[in-house]
Amino acid sequence: MSIKDNNKYMLKAIKMAEENFRSGNGGPFGAVVVRNGEIIAAAGNCVTSTNDPTAHAEVVAIREACKKLETFDLSGCEIFASCEPCPMCLGAILWSRIGKLYYAADRNDASRAGFDDELFYRELSLSNDERLLKPTQMLQEEAIKVFDKWIDTTDKIQY
Amino acid sequence: MSIKDNNKYMLKAIKMAEENFRSGNGGPFGAVVVRNGEIIAAAGNCVTSTNDPTAHAEVVAIREACKKLETFDLSGCEIFASCEPCPMCLGAILWSRIGKLYYAADRNDASRAGFDDELFYRELSLSNDERLLKPTQMLQEEAIKVFDKWIDTTDKIQY
Repeated sequence: MSIKDNNKYMLKAIKMAEENFRSGNGGPFGAVVVRNGEIIAAAGNCVTSTNDPTAHAEVVAIREACKKLETFDLSGCEIFASCEPCPMCLGAILWSRIGKLYYAADRNDASRAGFDDELFYRELSLSNDERLLKPTQMLQEEAIKVFDKWIDTTDKIQY
Repeated sequence: MSIKDNNKYMLKAIKMAEENFRSGNGGPFGAVVVRNGEIIAAAGNCVTSTNDPTAHAEVVAIREACKKLETFDLSGCEIFASCEPCPMCLGAILWSRIGKLYYAADRNDASRAGFDDELFYRELSLSNDERLLKPTQMLQEEAIKVFDKWIDTTDKIQY
């Protein structure tokens, strides 16, 4: 796609970010999923209006694109996000197999606007002992048995 | 909660992980959200059955718990996951404000079973140039203008 097209998609994501918070839908974030020059899905953040802390713009756009294309694999798609994806959204993009990410504002701009993206990026780089969540591992052997059964199963759908 | 209670919740998450892949719902993962000794939500991974790459067990359990409690804030809740949350799920847990995480298998066990958790943890620690997604930043100034308007808005719901 040309730079002109990319600008068009990103400007749409940014416009959605503004409309999104003005309408009371949620935070000032928008995302657009594109494939072969066609917009497959476009969404704003709807965390507060839907009581779903996972409903960031990127996650909602990915869900909508998957629904529309009837697949959990968005290989060949690109995503335009009005802000650098947080760790959750970056993970969602990776799992969706989207091939290319464009973003406008970054995690530091988001911090300045009161969002925890940068804090959570730091959390992910820490060891368990240092993390806010103080994760505790337990019953590992029991869980490994389930993975072993999964490995031995032949008729499974991998992702 | 006692260690005995914690074992009970984790064994439920692990049991769900096995039932989940055997029923064709999705991957071998389960998660349970608990508050004050009560199970608020329990879910398996349903990526492949719902065509939703974000429908990991933890994300689904968080969505269900929020729906049940009618809030996007799960402070005071704990989560038991049959496997160490991937970056997407860890992000979702942080955004949900769940206070404590227990997990059984870890990212290396998941790798051995064919899942990309460990790969994606590494991806998150890389710089843009090194990442698979090759992220490109563009139109930052346009997006910052939206954040500035958000900052200046007084009647907003923060999260």
